[in-house]
Amino acid sequence: MGRVVHKYGGSSVADADCIKRVAQRIVATKKAGNDVVVVISAMGDTTDELMDLAQQVSPLPPPRELDMLLTSGERISAALLAMAIANLGYQARSFTGSQAGVITTSAHGNARIIDITPSRIEDALAEGHVAIVAGFQGVAQDTKDITTLGRGASDTTAVALAAALEADYCEIYTDVDGIFTADPRIVPSARQIPKISYEEMLEMAACGAKVLHLRCVEYARRYNVPVHVRSSFSQKEGTWVVDAKELDPMEQAIISGVAQDRGEAKITVVGVPDKPGEAARIFETVAKAETNIDMIVQNVSAVATNRTDISFTLPRSDGSRAMSALARMKDEVGYEQLLYDDQIGKVSVVGVGMRSHPGVSAKFFSALADAGVNIEMISTSEIRISVVVDENLVDAAVQAAHTAFDLDDDQTQAVVYGGTGR
Amino acid sequence: MGRVVHKYGGSSVADADCIKRVAQRIVATKKAGNDVVVVISAMGDTTDELMDLAQQVSPLPPPRELDMLLTSGERISAALLAMAIANLGYQARSFTGSQAGVITTSAHGNARIIDITPSRIEDALAEGHVAIVAGFQGVAQDTKDITTLGRGASDTTAVALAAALEADYCEIYTDVDGIFTADPRIVPSARQIPKISYEEMLEMAACGAKVLHLRCVEYARRYNVPVHVRSSFSQKEGTWVVDAKELDPMEQAIISGVAQDRGEAKITVVGVPDKPGEAARIFETVAKAETNIDMIVQNVSAVATNRTDISFTLPRSDGSRAMSALARMKDEVGYEQLLYDDQIGKVSVVGVGMRSHPGVSAKFFSALADAGVNIEMISTSEIRISVVVDENLVDAAVQAAHTAFDLDDDQTQAVVYGGTGR
Repeated sequence: MGRVVHKYGGSSVADADCIKRVAQRIVATKKAGNDVVVVISAMGDTTDELMDLAQQVSPLPPPRELDMLLTSGERISAALLAMAIANLGYQARSFTGSQAGVITTSAHGNARIIDITPSRIEDALAEGHVAIVAGFQGVAQDTKDITTLGRGASDTTAVALAAALEADYCEIYTDVDGIFTADPRIVPSARQIPKISYEEMLEMAACGAKVLHLRCVEYARRYNVPVHVRSSFSQKEGTWVVDAKELDPMEQAIISGVAQDRGEAKITVVGVPDKPGEAARIFETVAKAETNIDMIVQNVSAVATNRTDISFTLPRSDGSRAMSALARMKDEVGYEQLLYDDQIGKVSVVGVGMRSHPGVSAKFFSALADAGVNIEMISTSEIRISVVVDENLVDAAVQAAHTAFDLDDDQTQAVVYGGTGR
Repeated sequence: MGRVVHKYGGSSVADADCIKRVAQRIVATKKAGNDVVVVISAMGDTTDELMDLAQQVSPLPPPRELDMLLTSGERISAALLAMAIANLGYQARSFTGSQAGVITTSAHGNARIIDITPSRIEDALAEGHVAIVAGFQGVAQDTKDITTLGRGASDTTAVALAAALEADYCEIYTDVDGIFTADPRIVPSARQIPKISYEEMLEMAACGAKVLHLRCVEYARRYNVPVHVRSSFSQKEGTWVVDAKELDPMEQAIISGVAQDRGEAKITVVGVPDKPGEAARIFETVAKAETNIDMIVQNVSAVATNRTDISFTLPRSDGSRAMSALARMKDEVGYEQLLYDDQIGKVSVVGVGMRSHPGVSAKFFSALADAGVNIEMISTSEIRISVVVDENLVDAAVQAAHTAFDLDDDQTQAVVYGGTGR
């Protein structure tokens, strides 16, 4: 007998009708002979509505109480889904994160999963029930308070549960058909990727792809849980995120996809004295301000002045905090100027294939040049190349890279250009 | 330092503004030097809205899941209230019924409190926090499932908590000013009762008075918890429900109040053979149908026929079930006819004073006669006299009794009749 975990997001359970449709899908999976565990988000905009209520009574709600409040949303949808499944003749039982054994840190609003001890889930499955777990929540190991898990939480909970229950795979149901070679809103000819490796998905997520959260993919990779990302509104196969070993090297494209991120800003510390310790001091300062640095670029110092410029990117929301911290350090570091630019975008090409294929950078950079896109910064990893470009040129850059690496969908391309194929 | 328990119903916390006003009242009580514990219901119509959602996904929701769903309502208001109190500079902590140690039977939707072990509440109070408990819920002793407590639950939880915490008293905040000598909508000259005994309140509640639930008053009496019923919309003193010893015998009116109940029906089994065991068989039959019998009247049998009529009242909602059960027993019992009348009302006068004052029945019955109200059945206890009358004459009966026992408010009477007082 198979064992699977399903996860349904808020838009998949937006109202009673959606819940009933989800129930039918779950029952079909059970009928096919599987143990089924479901992780579910709050209905539609419930979390936002609860946050709004909280703001009405207090501009600064205590974190513990905010978690008590927000977790009601998932509790409601979990119970309703259990009822809908029972109505189809199958037994189902809903559980809070705490009841499901999701043990977390006590960082309210952004707790991390420490462990999952799903004994009550195992009991329910043993009795032939469908187990439904309220997503986004757990219980703090030390205080026993209810916690919410921060961004990407329900996906991570689903994968973590799949790992703890030794499920065959985890299906993440969402409002898109799967992972695409690029954002279809920017590149209409983007294709759905049938299979992608954990490493590539990690890079795509880190570089701005929004479908699966970084934390979730990392968990899947660590515990080797196959993840199937698919649409809750159709029966189509989605994208499988799997161990790289599962991919057919013969079929592997060099580049799996192109991602973009419009949420970053660039800070340049101009004229930093080129002596040991200066760069360290800059980044210690920024780190103390609790900001997350992404790309760092430092060029060789100018011979004449013995000074260099250091640039780095970070989330725009951390921008002013980092700038304030650096401004206070001006005399101590002795730099000349501090520049801030939030009109940037980061464009990345990702693919395990680039390990074994030289010339990927060259192809990427000349595609950008041909499209008139200037490169401001470059950063690479083994399977990813990222560039920082002007924010207004992000779309053009994504489209150029997508075409250059033969990712465009043949048929769409034929329609657009009137040709018969590549 | 004093220790008090407050309970707020749904209309008292209908929206964010109401919640903020309740928070202010609680903070004022804390400032006055008290430990404060609050039991809170769901906001406004939340419970009805959740029930409606449940009905949309399933016409017959499993009881366990219905409880998981409905208890979200109280959880939301408890967390919001804690936030509002924190916003006023005082620390507050919300707890589910389970976290508060409310242990119950596992009868979902109608669980009974078995015990309350409020150690986490005690800890919160010891730290100087206000403790807020989600009402209407607990945790089943055997299954550890969340349960809801049935009618009058939050009031009962508040009183039970007050008992377990050895609080000085319990304040029930509601949308009326207190307990009145009669329903003010029927008797405009009804007066607010300053103090009433547990026994009298029990009778009033059993006879139709809706402000405090029977179960709640019984709990208060058993553990001797003074209960203050008052309005959440004003600062006026309400009604204190206390041990009879606390009442001043000199000030005690003979009758404390008049109650009516329009929810009953009368069944008459006509021509029951007057031999031993017949009455027993009738009531066993009705009991097996799980109906609650209220008043029973059996007259002496007619000499000529050696048969008698037995009448009894029961909730209208149990009516058809009882009739079906009795109809099936016709041949076995051998009665002649079965009559059903749901156009009845029960009117009761309640007062500890009647123990020591003869003539109360006489005064009651002649007041009814003067008002043209025919008495169909009579039933009494030590401190209560109830009559069954035609449903359309209930208001007239209540008014007549209220005036006959000098309960009318002097001032209102003066205004109505143009006199200067009694």
